[in-house]
Amino acid sequence: MTDGTRGKVLLATNKTDNALWVDLLGRTGREVVTAPDGAEDPSIHYAVAWHQPHGVLGNLPNLKAIFSLGAGVDHVLRDPTLPDLPIVRVVSENLAQHMAEYVTWRVLDHHRRGAQYQRQQAAGDWNELTQPTSAETSVGFMGIGELGRTAARAVGSLGFKLNGWSRRPADVPDMTTYAGAEGLPDFLASTDILVVLLPLTDATRGIITYDLLRQLRRDNAIGGSVLINAGRGGLHREADILRALEDGSLGEASLDVFETEPLPEASPLWQHPKVFVTPHAAAPSDPRAITMPMLEQMDAYDRGEPLQNLVDRAAGY
Amino acid sequence: MTDGTRGKVLLATNKTDNALWVDLLGRTGREVVTAPDGAEDPSIHYAVAWHQPHGVLGNLPNLKAIFSLGAGVDHVLRDPTLPDLPIVRVVSENLAQHMAEYVTWRVLDHHRRGAQYQRQQAAGDWNELTQPTSAETSVGFMGIGELGRTAARAVGSLGFKLNGWSRRPADVPDMTTYAGAEGLPDFLASTDILVVLLPLTDATRGIITYDLLRQLRRDNAIGGSVLINAGRGGLHREADILRALEDGSLGEASLDVFETEPLPEASPLWQHPKVFVTPHAAAPSDPRAITMPMLEQMDAYDRGEPLQNLVDRAAGY
Repeated sequence: MTDGTRGKVLLATNKTDNALWVDLLGRTGREVVTAPDGAEDPSIHYAVAWHQPHGVLGNLPNLKAIFSLGAGVDHVLRDPTLPDLPIVRVVSENLAQHMAEYVTWRVLDHHRRGAQYQRQQAAGDWNELTQPTSAETSVGFMGIGELGRTAARAVGSLGFKLNGWSRRPADVPDMTTYAGAEGLPDFLASTDILVVLLPLTDATRGIITYDLLRQLRRDNAIGGSVLINAGRGGLHREADILRALEDGSLGEASLDVFETEPLPEASPLWQHPKVFVTPHAAAPSDPRAITMPMLEQMDAYDRGEPLQNLVDRAAGY
Repeated sequence: MTDGTRGKVLLATNKTDNALWVDLLGRTGREVVTAPDGAEDPSIHYAVAWHQPHGVLGNLPNLKAIFSLGAGVDHVLRDPTLPDLPIVRVVSENLAQHMAEYVTWRVLDHHRRGAQYQRQQAAGDWNELTQPTSAETSVGFMGIGELGRTAARAVGSLGFKLNGWSRRPADVPDMTTYAGAEGLPDFLASTDILVVLLPLTDATRGIITYDLLRQLRRDNAIGGSVLINAGRGGLHREADILRALEDGSLGEASLDVFETEPLPEASPLWQHPKVFVTPHAAAPSDPRAITMPMLEQMDAYDRGEPLQNLVDRAAGY
């Protein structure tokens, strides 16, 4: 049952099936319309966006705020017709928890020599590999916001040494932090397993290059350096990752995100023996867990209260 | 340089290369001899054993105590000529830490659908699988001694629901515990991922049967029940595991220990698509970390102080 006294919600995504989202966003009685049907409708007060079709958000005379369906907002910001309105991103314990699981899983799999043990199993080879303790392996996080810190806490609770890098100096408990371009070489030289959880902005696009990867510490007891990218595919260059794997600058990689998604059939990453591919599945947004806080924020904003988790458009996250 | 004023240490193992152990056990100056050379030597006061050749420990007139090289002592106790002397087992933070890593790694790999994602990668299939949160998956520990509790803490810190089963009632923080034969059905029915870390005794030998496995909860969001055995191979029956995998009573397994080790070439476990095999490598004893406490205990016992971490021979652990 919809309630005509409150503004409508426009759902603007690149998804072909929005039925679940429409259902969940309608739970509190607001009418939900989907783009492009809702274009130019003055009764639309809020938009919920995921890779929205460009143009539709610019024609809504009474739009008050835009909610991203994810923790990242790069897909919202790249719309050249985006109006100058507040943008809210998802900050969800559920999403951060899923990301912490994924990162801990992949860190442990590389640290415990999972790929090598699987090759040995396929060959029927009973051979115990050298196993350093977690305290001997250092995990470095590029990106130490909400997601990076939650993942680092999970990894740190298993005894791994923690490093962190961010553009601006930051203090994180139990983590050695480095900042800016001048801090990057030392951060990389003391990191065995690099976890990338940066937001995708003009400043971070393509930051994971061959030159960066070859600076990771590879003289370690797990047989080389490791890259785990669970941030955005636009942060890395796949040709550079392949080159680094080829010449041994990089030992192994776990990639959940790619320059083009879905990962094209022709990509050599699919069959690469040193790469573990997942389909942008590290931290699924649980629709139930993220839509209710959006609806509550819409009601609060209508009452004149401030919005939470606002995006800094200049910074891009 | 050896010190003739203290009793010698006999190293009695089934290993072919004992050089590192001899070196480390000699660090405080005690003379170290290896079986069977040391047999009947009255100057031997302590033995360090790992699958010792039967007979050698029974002929030492001045032997005061026996130290196991592992956390388990089943390999020491099965010697029919074992003298009635105190037996000390390894309690090591290092060993428990390695075990916690292994268990957390395998729990996450099953929970995050690792094997299914690898099959999809091999097929070039971009397909996001249903992913429950850790709070929806319950991990049940059979064996909640030092190793089980340390592993449970690590798994619990990621948000998994914890169950525990032991022969006698026990309280463990943040864990639902069950005890004895009467508690087993409820424990199994509420467990998705079963972690076996029991000591191998007459009471536990062969406890992991088809009938036990089929009682695990398999109507769950990770596509079936899971067995992780990092205790001893003698606890399970491999024919029963294969039968349970075959008919779907069991979904997947991670096995680090086997009825016969090394796992025989002909075992169908090597090539089984639902089984992850490691070569008894879950918790390697770091020789450096475990020998010094043994040497310190020998000196303390010589001074008249009591031994720590004694084995209850009637219980078998």
